[in-house]
Amino acid sequence: MAPGIPRTLRYQGGALVLLDQRRLPAHREEVRCTTAAEVAAAIRDMAVRGAPAIGVAAAYGIVLAAEEAAAEPNPSASALLARVASAVETLARARPTAVNLSNALERMRGAAAEAAAEGADADEIVRRLEAAAAALEAFEIDASRTMGRLGADLLGGRGRLLVHCNAGALATVERGTALAVVYEQFERGHLEMVYVDETRPRLQGARLTAFELAESGIPHALFVDSLAATLMHRGQVDAVLVGADRIAANGDVANKVGTYALAVACAHHRIPLIVVAPTTTVDLGCPDGAAIPIEDRDRAEVVGSGADNSAPPATPVLNPAFDVTPANLVHALVTERGVARPLTQATLAGVLARSPE
Amino acid sequence: MAPGIPRTLRYQGGALVLLDQRRLPAHREEVRCTTAAEVAAAIRDMAVRGAPAIGVAAAYGIVLAAEEAAAEPNPSASALLARVASAVETLARARPTAVNLSNALERMRGAAAEAAAEGADADEIVRRLEAAAAALEAFEIDASRTMGRLGADLLGGRGRLLVHCNAGALATVERGTALAVVYEQFERGHLEMVYVDETRPRLQGARLTAFELAESGIPHALFVDSLAATLMHRGQVDAVLVGADRIAANGDVANKVGTYALAVACAHHRIPLIVVAPTTTVDLGCPDGAAIPIEDRDRAEVVGSGADNSAPPATPVLNPAFDVTPANLVHALVTERGVARPLTQATLAGVLARSPE
Repeated sequence: MAPGIPRTLRYQGGALVLLDQRRLPAHREEVRCTTAAEVAAAIRDMAVRGAPAIGVAAAYGIVLAAEEAAAEPNPSASALLARVASAVETLARARPTAVNLSNALERMRGAAAEAAAEGADADEIVRRLEAAAAALEAFEIDASRTMGRLGADLLGGRGRLLVHCNAGALATVERGTALAVVYEQFERGHLEMVYVDETRPRLQGARLTAFELAESGIPHALFVDSLAATLMHRGQVDAVLVGADRIAANGDVANKVGTYALAVACAHHRIPLIVVAPTTTVDLGCPDGAAIPIEDRDRAEVVGSGADNSAPPATPVLNPAFDVTPANLVHALVTERGVARPLTQATLAGVLARSPE
Repeated sequence: MAPGIPRTLRYQGGALVLLDQRRLPAHREEVRCTTAAEVAAAIRDMAVRGAPAIGVAAAYGIVLAAEEAAAEPNPSASALLARVASAVETLARARPTAVNLSNALERMRGAAAEAAAEGADADEIVRRLEAAAAALEAFEIDASRTMGRLGADLLGGRGRLLVHCNAGALATVERGTALAVVYEQFERGHLEMVYVDETRPRLQGARLTAFELAESGIPHALFVDSLAATLMHRGQVDAVLVGADRIAANGDVANKVGTYALAVACAHHRIPLIVVAPTTTVDLGCPDGAAIPIEDRDRAEVVGSGADNSAPPATPVLNPAFDVTPANLVHALVTERGVARPLTQATLAGVLARSPE
């Protein structure tokens, strides 16, 4: 964990406790989920967000569903499996774009089915599911550290980094993806400045990334999203680092809305755009970016609550939460298994075929 | 005026009455200025904004200063000129980037000096200043209509237009600059959709442009600034129209922050970026964009008032109100004297040498 950053989530005794990211940085409050439906609501409403974090949260949501089933009188393995299947459906609907969510659910469903096939009783299936969720959490922690190291190796002496949204400790269960590289670069003494765009509409850059960097004592400056290209034009940016919510087989990257605009500006100014994401974010079932489902969110995120400082109440709004960046605009993809550079179908497949670093 | 849009400003009997643009669209309130200092404060605090509108407002600010001097016992022409000079200084400091402000003030100072040189008394100088301010207002009204026509001619059948900030009726004293073209294109039956970015940090797109277009019954959709490049990538945008706050002799354009990012995205997608501005926005005293002063505004515009939904209170903030787009990224400049395409030092000089259309 980065110093000073509260834990994004922790599982303890029949509850998943989430740091409520909607309330940061002004308030450090927790949301306590004891059912899969509560975890699904927390993901949908973005109490927890960030592709790796929602994957791990969903895994613990399955554990909660299994525990509930196992606590009933004379629980059968098959009743428990049905409960798990129902929770998988509920959680999968919470948010469509980040594939970590469905990957985690698939892994949990598989762990339950495998245990049942081996003749495990309900309590044993719950134990196996707890172990599977903990293993996913441990994987993401390891992946975060490795990506930080590989990303910093790639950057070398580049010290002026621009980041988008929050791909840090709050988006994951450790130091993050893109921000893991920033933390590592800071520890290596190479960091000069982190340029943090505010990331409309939900301001994850302003509320979460600026908060994380301040807690860690890392120099940073905040600005509106539309200034990023001008900072590049002025020669103030050495590299742009972003996370990802889903990476297609050909390397196209879905990430927070605004990533594509940064990619275009990077291409214009010949600045490397580096995507940092664990292999759990890759979806070989999507041939390319056009196949990635993009979540449209509520208009209220853009126009506000109808208070004074907003658009007229009836204004039509476009609010996709994500956009797709073609692989050819990505300088490199940093995963826990290595770096794909340039990012193509072949280099991505090559990285996936490796053992973890 | 576009239908349904309240007047940006009107001068009546010793007062300049401004529609308070900070309160739109929720409230239609007026600010009544009876001194040059009040006009300067209204410009600085953005009760009135938009390069042509602040030029005209400043001109009437000079009229108010002259009237005040002329109302004193035994007013002398020289005392009045001194009061005008002082008001010019006060108003010139209100906002640095839009050259319309200093151009208007220079014109007013010249009108007063010329009248005094011809032996006019204080009352006569006031009358001349009123006439000069009214002439500037009339010029901007004519210019708006002409730019609308020339811009629509340039667009031809292009009907899906993206606009930034507010360069409409509220930014001027008539139909605007970029939005004058939109209104004209709508009346010609060519308009399909206006894509309106919200324009952080002050949301002029959301609060003012969406309001104007709704009042005029023009189809539009609002979205966060960082989505614009993706709309271009999807093939939904035929042209981008923006206003300008200052245009250097070589054609470099200072305009609301975010314009440069749009220009880069236009270049990448081969979509024309069309700048629409009267010749009063050209500053031949600036050889290029690097010479244009860029106003840095208060951090509170970006981080809010310290309420829940904002960055940590101590976050360092970059908040330039404008950026500079190099002339070579501009497809064409539309002025009331004609179109400079491509936009170069030579084509700009050629347009300036023409008579008004």
